[in-house]
Amino acid sequence: MSEPIPIVGGTGALGYGLALRWAQAGRSVVIGSRSAERAEQAAAKLREAVPGAEVEGLLNGEAARRAEVVFLTVPFRAQSENLNNLREALRPGQILVDCTVPLAAAVSGKATRSLGVWQGSAAQQAQEMVPDGVTVIAALHTVGAPSLGDGTAELDEDVLICGDRKADKARVARLIELIPGLRAVNAGPLEMARIVEQLTPLLISVNVRYKAHAGVRLTGLPDGDHWQ
Amino acid sequence: MSEPIPIVGGTGALGYGLALRWAQAGRSVVIGSRSAERAEQAAAKLREAVPGAEVEGLLNGEAARRAEVVFLTVPFRAQSENLNNLREALRPGQILVDCTVPLAAAVSGKATRSLGVWQGSAAQQAQEMVPDGVTVIAALHTVGAPSLGDGTAELDEDVLICGDRKADKARVARLIELIPGLRAVNAGPLEMARIVEQLTPLLISVNVRYKAHAGVRLTGLPDGDHWQ
Repeated sequence: MSEPIPIVGGTGALGYGLALRWAQAGRSVVIGSRSAERAEQAAAKLREAVPGAEVEGLLNGEAARRAEVVFLTVPFRAQSENLNNLREALRPGQILVDCTVPLAAAVSGKATRSLGVWQGSAAQQAQEMVPDGVTVIAALHTVGAPSLGDGTAELDEDVLICGDRKADKARVARLIELIPGLRAVNAGPLEMARIVEQLTPLLISVNVRYKAHAGVRLTGLPDGDHWQ
Repeated sequence: MSEPIPIVGGTGALGYGLALRWAQAGRSVVIGSRSAERAEQAAAKLREAVPGAEVEGLLNGEAARRAEVVFLTVPFRAQSENLNNLREALRPGQILVDCTVPLAAAVSGKATRSLGVWQGSAAQQAQEMVPDGVTVIAALHTVGAPSLGDGTAELDEDVLICGDRKADKARVARLIELIPGLRAVNAGPLEMARIVEQLTPLLISVNVRYKAHAGVRLTGLPDGDHWQ
């Protein structure tokens, strides 16, 4: 049996959308929340949406202990608090996939603008805050929560993955590519999250203008498995 | 007869590639350079590549006087110098399309990293430097010079256009969409160049890793003419 996929902040729109898609793909998921009750409510909703889904709702810290690869899908405003709370839960060897985007909306600014993060990106801030031996990978910034959360919407876009070791990125890529329509692209070292995180405000701006749910696709890449 | 398309820095790889593509599309182009001799050499090369091409090679300042929409395709290192030199040439009502990307390579850093520009982006720096009444539009950061310059390579990507007035962006979009395979997307106000300019180091990084000439495509946008 494969490991479950824990999602810290899994009751939010992005986290729940991912949980839904992975459940549809037949994977076991763990929805984490600050509230055990809200976690269980989201899990129940998911079981209803995907009959037979293997899904648990747990407190974030408990969720984070359930597998080696953990997804963090909280808003930037809550990122530091969550990482503080996860210090006791995370252990060396784990991979934390940070999906955080430092939108200016975090401080009541526009969602089409971003904040400067001292470390360069939200993901690099996360890397500074996790316990030693935990590796941060940045991914999933540009996949719209509405598209994910509508389990019938066809996806057709890339997920740009940043991290310092290809092997770690490949593990995350395998999980992402379980979701039909998503292709994982190696976008370089973690510092490239400075750029990739900025794609979200750009897409939000385009979405408003075009009344769309835009995604990103890189053209001109070779066919085949990028992660062998 | 339609206006020619002047390209300041048109002897460089990006500028020449654009000139080639517009000449193939039957448009008259003006290749600008700091050196009249090099401008004429590039024009002669283009006439050879595209029989019947209407192309002139002129000093940058003369080129910039030849039409209302002027393209600036110089490296970031040379952007300020060129804008200073264009102060006497540019006049109110003109549109300057800035294609500059503040790569760290400008100061001998990596082409996969960027410099912070005080104004937020190279395009906003350009807007500060042009004469009053000249409008800066940012575009063409992500179209690879090698793909453009190989007149037979099929393009299949978007060009993200930033600027404060849609009408100005639409004029530039019409020129860009003369090149088969390029779709112009309205990426918002000029300040969004802060993000769009960053796509170039991201693509350079991906190109190295995948041995490719990657471009950007936004998925999920409605079909049809975006610029009506």
